[in-house]
Amino acid sequence: MIETPSLVDQYCHGVLRTELGLGTFETYLGRTPALPAPGTTFFDTQTGFAVRRWCPPLLGLEPHCPPAHYLARRRELGVVETGRRLLRGSGISTYLVDTGLPGDLTGPGEIAAAGAAEAREIVRLELLAEQVADTSGTVDGFLANLAEAVHSAARSAVAFTSVAGVRHGLALAPHPPGPGEVRGAVGRWLAGRRAGGTLTDPVVLRHLLWIAVASGLPLQLQAGTAGPGLRIDRTDPMLLTDFAAATAGLGTDLVLLHGYPYHRHAAHLASVFPHVYADLGPALAHTGARAAAVLAEILELAPFGKLLFSSGARGLPELHVVGARLFREALSRVLGGWVGDGAWSRVDAERVAGLIAAGNARRVYGLVDGSSDGGGHR
Amino acid sequence: MIETPSLVDQYCHGVLRTELGLGTFETYLGRTPALPAPGTTFFDTQTGFAVRRWCPPLLGLEPHCPPAHYLARRRELGVVETGRRLLRGSGISTYLVDTGLPGDLTGPGEIAAAGAAEAREIVRLELLAEQVADTSGTVDGFLANLAEAVHSAARSAVAFTSVAGVRHGLALAPHPPGPGEVRGAVGRWLAGRRAGGTLTDPVVLRHLLWIAVASGLPLQLQAGTAGPGLRIDRTDPMLLTDFAAATAGLGTDLVLLHGYPYHRHAAHLASVFPHVYADLGPALAHTGARAAAVLAEILELAPFGKLLFSSGARGLPELHVVGARLFREALSRVLGGWVGDGAWSRVDAERVAGLIAAGNARRVYGLVDGSSDGGGHR
Amino acid sequence: MIETPSLVDQYCHGVLRTELGLGTFETYLGRTPALPAPGTTFFDTQTGFAVRRWCPPLLGLEPHCPPAHYLARRRELGVVETGRRLLRGSGISTYLVDTGLPGDLTGPGEIAAAGAAEAREIVRLELLAEQVADTSGTVDGFLANLAEAVHSAARSAVAFTSVAGVRHGLALAPHPPGPGEVRGAVGRWLAGRRAGGTLTDPVVLRHLLWIAVASGLPLQLQAGTAGPGLRIDRTDPMLLTDFAAATAGLGTDLVLLHGYPYHRHAAHLASVFPHVYADLGPALAHTGARAAAVLAEILELAPFGKLLFSSGARGLPELHVVGARLFREALSRVLGGWVGDGAWSRVDAERVAGLIAAGNARRVYGLVDGSSDGGGHR
Repeated sequence: MIETPSLVDQYCHGVLRTELGLGTFETYLGRTPALPAPGTTFFDTQTGFAVRRWCPPLLGLEPHCPPAHYLARRRELGVVETGRRLLRGSGISTYLVDTGLPGDLTGPGEIAAAGAAEAREIVRLELLAEQVADTSGTVDGFLANLAEAVHSAARSAVAFTSVAGVRHGLALAPHPPGPGEVRGAVGRWLAGRRAGGTLTDPVVLRHLLWIAVASGLPLQLQAGTAGPGLRIDRTDPMLLTDFAAATAGLGTDLVLLHGYPYHRHAAHLASVFPHVYADLGPALAHTGARAAAVLAEILELAPFGKLLFSSGARGLPELHVVGARLFREALSRVLGGWVGDGAWSRVDAERVAGLIAAGNARRVYGLVDGSSDGGGHR
Repeated sequence: MIETPSLVDQYCHGVLRTELGLGTFETYLGRTPALPAPGTTFFDTQTGFAVRRWCPPLLGLEPHCPPAHYLARRRELGVVETGRRLLRGSGISTYLVDTGLPGDLTGPGEIAAAGAAEAREIVRLELLAEQVADTSGTVDGFLANLAEAVHSAARSAVAFTSVAGVRHGLALAPHPPGPGEVRGAVGRWLAGRRAGGTLTDPVVLRHLLWIAVASGLPLQLQAGTAGPGLRIDRTDPMLLTDFAAATAGLGTDLVLLHGYPYHRHAAHLASVFPHVYADLGPALAHTGARAAAVLAEILELAPFGKLLFSSGARGLPELHVVGARLFREALSRVLGGWVGDGAWSRVDAERVAGLIAAGNARRVYGLVDGSSDGGGHR
Repeated sequence: MIETPSLVDQYCHGVLRTELGLGTFETYLGRTPALPAPGTTFFDTQTGFAVRRWCPPLLGLEPHCPPAHYLARRRELGVVETGRRLLRGSGISTYLVDTGLPGDLTGPGEIAAAGAAEAREIVRLELLAEQVADTSGTVDGFLANLAEAVHSAARSAVAFTSVAGVRHGLALAPHPPGPGEVRGAVGRWLAGRRAGGTLTDPVVLRHLLWIAVASGLPLQLQAGTAGPGLRIDRTDPMLLTDFAAATAGLGTDLVLLHGYPYHRHAAHLASVFPHVYADLGPALAHTGARAAAVLAEILELAPFGKLLFSSGARGLPELHVVGARLFREALSRVLGGWVGDGAWSRVDAERVAGLIAAGNARRVYGLVDGSSDGGGHR
């Protein structure tokens, strides 16, 4: 057994505030908004099985109890108490929360309170731009307001995150678009847009990435995941190679989120660019009983100071639990196996476990260990 | 040990009716018609070693006996008795047989009789079109005869299968070609064609796919495999994303065959599209002692109701045996390991084993469990 | 335990002749010339941990001792004695040495002497062409001198190697360029070139490949690796499919070097083209404690007569040790596990171990087993 300290979850979302029926709960176990195929259920997935393994005991039930029993117990406790018990049982002491998803989700303050933990905000660039667009009448106004919004966000947020890969694919031109190009693209986007309309224009997406790079805050880039029905190979992190080369030496770190099934590519980039880091979370939460095997693949090329835990959880506090427990067990199994073989020393293994669980994230995001820090929620 | 019921082999071919020498036998162990390199043999492959592990005992020999001993015993028994013993020892109770390969191969009825099993036919679209072309004089005649042939095949066959990926690559335009486009392409194909000529025109291939989709029968698409000397990345199932999106909700299921080395991509598609299923077979038969590891990778993302066993066997009944035995052992090892770790419950593991071994195929292809059904051979 | 004979290292470089400080030593553990990220070290990689596992005992220290202790002991012994002890402890009896890297590296004769082994030279095509360009005034002179240089090298070298993939990517047109095309490209390259300038022109690179093919010596092609900051998917060995098809039957073997993370693609090509072989080395040296898992993936599709061990070591004799020890332990673990499961017989496993460790390389490169051969250094 390798000891792992309490975790920094470097990328997650809030949890739903509403009571959930079995059908809605099941939807959050799937990877898309689509319904399961006739005759099948999303409980019959690695994520579904992992939830049934780890969560019932935190609510006083047997592991692997039937979904209907679990949901009944959940309703009995109520959504608030369920969230408290699950988040406090996750082993996570700091949550970095992407607040850019729609839906009635708790914010960092509520997560911190429910989980008896700290929480910090990650600002989603595309939502920020859409909010600015909702209140800006002209191209000039939009660009000035956007710069101000990013500047302002950078004062309190711990990182920026971008879904440019999900929206457009990661095969974006690597260099910043010129001012005229940006003005033209913004003008076309604003002219064709209704309030609330999403941003998919590649030039505006690139402009966002570059003003985020200029802020100096770590920039998280979603990869290995795509919108429903879209090709995930368009989000292969390898497509970020030229962007990584273009941003090398500027002082801003890039964190590649997700990665799977291209996690070996993410690990490669983390090994060749000093400012590139790779995330571990959703790859483990989606693959459940296979988490140790997937983690081991990431640990092939990535330097041990370049990997960061996250749960990637969204909507259900069960997913924070599953992400954290799977990670902790996988890390202990993989590193413990190497110690058992004599390939690694125990001292090294425990040091590396601490780096991936929390230390690397504290260093990259400038988090203070243990005690409350100024910008945090507690 | 996880108990697995008798198997539905959802994709295989018939076996050769002729006696085989060592050299011909060896050819069927390779992945292409090319000869082995000087100084090497296709017996020195995972498939070759798996045949030597599983098949000699069914013919009364020791496992891993030398190939020459095995072939001698095979000739002693004769091709018919060898086939009976092997197929009856495979653990397969239903064979779905693609009858579209050239060569002196047994059909579904013969396989059913030899294996004391049921068998149903899978119709290969490209062969059907080539047969129709051989007897049609005009574009109009071809199109009418093709529609009739597909309609007729759909009454008795259990599925259609397409080798469009092998013939052209899977980067086909996802939408149905227009009537004028089809007429033009058919006209050019028929004009340049001699009797027996193969179909490679992408427009005609797409037309075939769409009339198959309209039939409502499950449509099997070969992926992760290619003709000799062709790039297999052109058959990456990821390339079917747009076709899957275009056929979503139409009521026809797509089954991705093979997949390896892109099996994680196939599992991804099965997880995001309700009507997409993934096949397990040849990936295991080709990787032999690694079958459990490859199976485990497929089980990362694919919902457990979306995976189907097949042997993919062709020509040698040894390959039906190897596909089935490797699958059964791999499934027991992988799921049994997860039960041993506490990650899965035993009840869940046995239920999932039953789904992948037979239950999912029975549901997708509308097969009746156990007893003889109208269209089957027995 | 599976017994493995002494190894033929089918691709490596020489070792540095100068004493090394901690920082320079660390640089050779990374995969690029870039410095490690602030707060991290390249000792915290699989390669770093593998060096600390295997090398200290060869210098009289405990495994996993701190890097500073190891470097102090290294300086105490001196670079020559350190090299002797490490190379003689590697278990390698024949080194094939790519002499085409810049830097103060030992040549084949020195490696043979230090390691009490044999050594043969591999000639790097691009360096040969650059050297010829340095001394040729005209296109005609360059082409005649190049042909003579390749012809001359083929008399003493054991193989050619090409970094066309690193320089330009492997998506090269598969057929030989025409004479006029070559003359034009050479003219433009020579005109724009200063002495020592590197060759990146795709037409000249292809010309080099084809004159090497004509020589009949095995041709090693670097894949799955790229220059700093370049996309490694441009060196996916799958991109060599058309070149492999174009060179089939010509009598020249192609050896795919590196491969990782595309090692399954390399294994696929080795399984479908009789003249294509796959290398094992750097994939294992870079992945350390994961070497057995990566080796097992390569052993899925590749026929066992088509795989070749190498260390890929460069600069540090520690990397020859790590490559060899990781390989030997991984092979024993993987094949031994299959024997333990009954999947392989012990006799087969030991035979295959001998093929991959040395036998295949002896056959492909025409090396004489054990005794000194004419062209070798001893």
